Amino acid sequence: MQGKMKVAVMTGVGRSAFEEREIPRPKAGEVLVKLEYIGICGSDLHYYATGGIGDCRVEPPFVLGHEAGGTVVETGAGVTDLKVGDRVALEPGKTCGHCEFCRTGRYNLCPDVVFFATPPVDGVFQEYVAHEAGLCFKLPDNVSTMEGALIEPLAVGFHAANLGEAHIGQTAVVTGSGCIGLVSLLAMKAMGVSRVYVVDVIEARLRKALECGADGVINGRTADVVQEVMRLTGGRGTDLVIETAGTEATTRQAIQMAKKGSTIVLVGLGASGEMTLPMTAAINKELTFKSICRYRHCYPMAIDAVATGRINIRGIVTNEFAFDDLPEALDICINNKDEVVKGVVRVAD
Amino acid sequence: MQGKMKVAVMTGVGRSAFEEREIPRPKAGEVLVKLEYIGICGSDLHYYATGGIGDCRVEPPFVLGHEAGGTVVETGAGVTDLKVGDRVALEPGKTCGHCEFCRTGRYNLCPDVVFFATPPVDGVFQEYVAHEAGLCFKLPDNVSTMEGALIEPLAVGFHAANLGEAHIGQTAVVTGSGCIGLVSLLAMKAMGVSRVYVVDVIEARLRKALECGADGVINGRTADVVQEVMRLTGGRGTDLVIETAGTEATTRQAIQMAKKGSTIVLVGLGASGEMTLPMTAAINKELTFKSICRYRHCYPMAIDAVATGRINIRGIVTNEFAFDDLPEALDICINNKDEVVKGVVRVAD
Amino acid sequence: MQGKMKVAVMTGVGRSAFEEREIPRPKAGEVLVKLEYIGICGSDLHYYATGGIGDCRVEPPFVLGHEAGGTVVETGAGVTDLKVGDRVALEPGKTCGHCEFCRTGRYNLCPDVVFFATPPVDGVFQEYVAHEAGLCFKLPDNVSTMEGALIEPLAVGFHAANLGEAHIGQTAVVTGSGCIGLVSLLAMKAMGVSRVYVVDVIEARLRKALECGADGVINGRTADVVQEVMRLTGGRGTDLVIETAGTEATTRQAIQMAKKGSTIVLVGLGASGEMTLPMTAAINKELTFKSICRYRHCYPMAIDAVATGRINIRGIVTNEFAFDDLPEALDICINNKDEVVKGVVRVAD
Amino acid sequence: MQGKMKVAVMTGVGRSAFEEREIPRPKAGEVLVKLEYIGICGSDLHYYATGGIGDCRVEPPFVLGHEAGGTVVETGAGVTDLKVGDRVALEPGKTCGHCEFCRTGRYNLCPDVVFFATPPVDGVFQEYVAHEAGLCFKLPDNVSTMEGALIEPLAVGFHAANLGEAHIGQTAVVTGSGCIGLVSLLAMKAMGVSRVYVVDVIEARLRKALECGADGVINGRTADVVQEVMRLTGGRGTDLVIETAGTEATTRQAIQMAKKGSTIVLVGLGASGEMTLPMTAAINKELTFKSICRYRHCYPMAIDAVATGRINIRGIVTNEFAFDDLPEALDICINNKDEVVKGVVRVAD
Repeated sequence: MQGKMKVAVMTGVGRSAFEEREIPRPKAGEVLVKLEYIGICGSDLHYYATGGIGDCRVEPPFVLGHEAGGTVVETGAGVTDLKVGDRVALEPGKTCGHCEFCRTGRYNLCPDVVFFATPPVDGVFQEYVAHEAGLCFKLPDNVSTMEGALIEPLAVGFHAANLGEAHIGQTAVVTGSGCIGLVSLLAMKAMGVSRVYVVDVIEARLRKALECGADGVINGRTADVVQEVMRLTGGRGTDLVIETAGTEATTRQAIQMAKKGSTIVLVGLGASGEMTLPMTAAINKELTFKSICRYRHCYPMAIDAVATGRINIRGIVTNEFAFDDLPEALDICINNKDEVVKGVVRVAD
Repeated sequence: MQGKMKVAVMTGVGRSAFEEREIPRPKAGEVLVKLEYIGICGSDLHYYATGGIGDCRVEPPFVLGHEAGGTVVETGAGVTDLKVGDRVALEPGKTCGHCEFCRTGRYNLCPDVVFFATPPVDGVFQEYVAHEAGLCFKLPDNVSTMEGALIEPLAVGFHAANLGEAHIGQTAVVTGSGCIGLVSLLAMKAMGVSRVYVVDVIEARLRKALECGADGVINGRTADVVQEVMRLTGGRGTDLVIETAGTEATTRQAIQMAKKGSTIVLVGLGASGEMTLPMTAAINKELTFKSICRYRHCYPMAIDAVATGRINIRGIVTNEFAFDDLPEALDICINNKDEVVKGVVRVAD
Repeated sequence: MQGKMKVAVMTGVGRSAFEEREIPRPKAGEVLVKLEYIGICGSDLHYYATGGIGDCRVEPPFVLGHEAGGTVVETGAGVTDLKVGDRVALEPGKTCGHCEFCRTGRYNLCPDVVFFATPPVDGVFQEYVAHEAGLCFKLPDNVSTMEGALIEPLAVGFHAANLGEAHIGQTAVVTGSGCIGLVSLLAMKAMGVSRVYVVDVIEARLRKALECGADGVINGRTADVVQEVMRLTGGRGTDLVIETAGTEATTRQAIQMAKKGSTIVLVGLGASGEMTLPMTAAINKELTFKSICRYRHCYPMAIDAVATGRINIRGIVTNEFAFDDLPEALDICINNKDEVVKGVVRVAD
Repeated sequence: MQGKMKVAVMTGVGRSAFEEREIPRPKAGEVLVKLEYIGICGSDLHYYATGGIGDCRVEPPFVLGHEAGGTVVETGAGVTDLKVGDRVALEPGKTCGHCEFCRTGRYNLCPDVVFFATPPVDGVFQEYVAHEAGLCFKLPDNVSTMEGALIEPLAVGFHAANLGEAHIGQTAVVTGSGCIGLVSLLAMKAMGVSRVYVVDVIEARLRKALECGADGVINGRTADVVQEVMRLTGGRGTDLVIETAGTEATTRQAIQMAKKGSTIVLVGLGASGEMTLPMTAAINKELTFKSICRYRHCYPMAIDAVATGRINIRGIVTNEFAFDDLPEALDICINNKDEVVKGVVRVAD
């Protein structure tokens, strides 16, 4: 397929414009995907609003977006597992395949990863993308490409729940009810966790958590979170906490509410990079802290969970935007954090 | 509570009679439970019909039955976690608490276990039983004592699924669709396993499996089981097999249908004790075989799974009998294996 | 055995005196042990010098000491595994055996543990003690009772190394070269860890680490610890860090030197209870933090390691004191931290 | 490097001849290795003597040999981690890097593996070989290329010990004292296993096991193996068995000697492919069977173990042959199984 495509380009902090670029050609082992839905991630918003995350700075022009679903329109040489017309979810990170981390199956730690919308690698706020076929996961008939785009954040939830060894019989808490909090909730419920309570300070997010199946929610502004969790657990504390808020306050609460010998999964990245934590209390309880960086091996299980109806991933979406409105969409998401939990962009149907 | 109770006693092979005995007194740390429902297990039927299982022989008079739910009517000294009126599921095995196995949390392997209805220890086909309070698990309001009785077999399903590390995204097969096959199916589905297919040779059992949520069933009499599993899995084979039939044929099939690097959980005990298996094929695939003996730590998660609606354990029951009809009930279960998948006895309401 | 025994009693902060008390009688399931060697632990010194550790305060009169080896001189009713004359190492904590933690094999987290020299439970700076037989581990002929006393700290090292999943092929660092740092080093080397480097700021301790088999040592006062570890590992960082110093500085270093996806085991308890840590860096590396509280199931492997010659546990001892000199010994240990790494008290031979 | 090299070619069952072939050219990402030592594996002998292993048949002309150590003499494009003059051990299997098994770190199960001397892929009984640089592991100065060649079988021992979760404090048995039995023994001892007993029926092999550090040996011809293991373990049985003999008799013994809840690692492949085993006994003990296919991630730890002196891998060698004598060497190995435990071929120094 030849021709031009529209690309939404970040041209500066808080500024963007559409450009025309050549539609990419799929190389050997790649497929060309016509994108249909692209999710807007908190990291996209952070890059857009501030020009970087930690030491990782955007050099405009730059293309944001890494949560993508679409349809294969062309296959490169040697591609046998996908064909034109297949609808796919795109795992955004290409890895080297032969470093220590790739060899041992922890490819998410590959130092040479090339990941959509992580500077300097462009993302997918555009109409087409050529991508490694092995990273394009075919969607079953009953999974839409909008759901396909949402597999990316859902994979984070599964990786958190997997590393936390979430399982039936447990009582868990998710701190933070943004997109990653919600997918952590969804993943844990799909894995059988018996009770999941969600903590946030924004009522709209807590309502969303209840819609997504939370067994209870706690507003940290109006309640004593630890005391409330202790009440809900009959004084026993939690078996598992997934911390997605990235704040010192919630991480401290996680340590305080955790049952002896239990696990806390750290997902949220704080603004400052540093936290002051009650480590003696943590050690006396023999806590385990897992932390996660993206995900590995989670796309198949996340797609399965949606396809089998265990997870209604559309339920996390609060706002749907047209691709042509992307600049405004980014502004809306940045300026209405109390209302927009998760936005997606419709590129084509 | 003092007085007499009715006890159903196995008086010989295939023979039973009711006796009156003293209602037991709960010792320190024990509670007295008025039994309401008792499940009939395949092992009860085997002891009753043949006088033993392997080297373990019944010396009549003997009391069968080890799947029990009831209500606490008296508490022994020092019992604080239970009170009169609490409805409970009884875990049948008392363990020593200090051997190597108990110390390391594998109490199901305790060599000094005292287990209901495992000769020479009497079981619970009777109106009352005194039992260690710590082994009587309080049922939530929405779990009936009939469901409480069925927690025992369900715990076997959970132990099998736990040791098999069942999880979301997997395709699993259960060979054998008797009670233990069904609870293995239920446990795996509750733990998120994406697809579970069930194999048996009796249509009534396969129908029950479908009612219990199997994603498909295969009748080993009319289909080539391995070929059919390969078709269903797109040639990939299974991620997990739970073998509950106890036959060489199904164990061989399990090895043949297993994906490389996957796991087979052996639960079913064969009649002869010996099996001829294609071990070179198993080794070349780097298979793992786990085997299980009863269960450990499974009552809380099994009760949770029923209480939260993840598992409809009543769904496995095909026949309900009155306690007064127990002798006939045993005969019916033994002589109608094609129809009776799971029987329970109602002792009181 | 009847009569009086000498007991070293802490009568106030920094004050102690000998008392005569009745030799205890072993109850059913207990043995009476004539103590021969007792280790002096940092916690003993901390209680003695300051009157408490965190919220746990000593109410004098109090008996310190929890690292003990001796000989069985009397057996209580029902004891079959031990006999008079057996030489034993004493695991100091009696646990309930039936709580959630005991049932699942994590008895070190039992909330009802009764542990020598943890207020208000008296310790073993005395001539005899009656103790649960199952907690008295028989020593092989080639393991002395002095080594038996040192099994207690060695068990901490093994628990740390176990939870850290120490194994052959790894490069590890121990931060802190006190007693617990040394036993962590010894445990890791015995488990096959390929290279263990030890960090401290006191030269005498680093020399001891080299004597105990460290592959290298780093003095944090004179070297840039992280830079030096990076140099030693060819820039790869560590596979495992066991942090025993309990300081924020060393915990920060641990995070900085850790390879992506690797594990840090937190053992040392800091003075303030709080630490400010670079958590974003830790999360970006997907680090796992394990923390440990004492040990479980470690006595047999620790005794084995000494008996088979894999570990020379005597090598950690720098000072041996006579029981009659215990008050002076405590003062020496407290006032010469740069020289005394590990002291033991000889009660009898 | 251009020119001819000598290749030892299997020209038929039990027949071989030397040929001249072009020295191969290293492709991008490959290195050319001048081979110095090549081990003779049981599989080489089996192919040579019988023309195949199971369904895998040799089509002559064919080159045997897959245990190789040598020196890099040329590097292909893009190779940065190795340089001319580096001495290396060659891991023989090239894998695809992107299948389900490779992605999850279990590359030894890759269906598209290309493995030296596994028909139809030629092996390395020749003077030079071009091989993927990432599979050529640099040897430390104190590890010879003969030891480098022996890293291949040693990796099998480590994989067996790893999957068996071998660790300090255990009592283990190895059944079969051929090359793979010996490396399993060496790996377990290096990983800290406390006691390893070795079973065989050939005295020369048992003597070799003792030389290699076995804590005891049992001759299955003259002793009742299970009874002897029970005696040695004080009736407790084994914590871990690594079965390398590939016979039904030893596999049955493994089941009988195994402690409840313990693990048996199946390594040896039997002649017939089928075994009749006491599966009910295995299930009642809740045994785990792991089986292994080659190895993964084991070269670095195996090289480490040799370099640090934990393992004397030269100690397994009983016979050293010159490359020019390879045809005779193969005959000697085949006809003197009672004396030749492990042969190596010296190609160059």
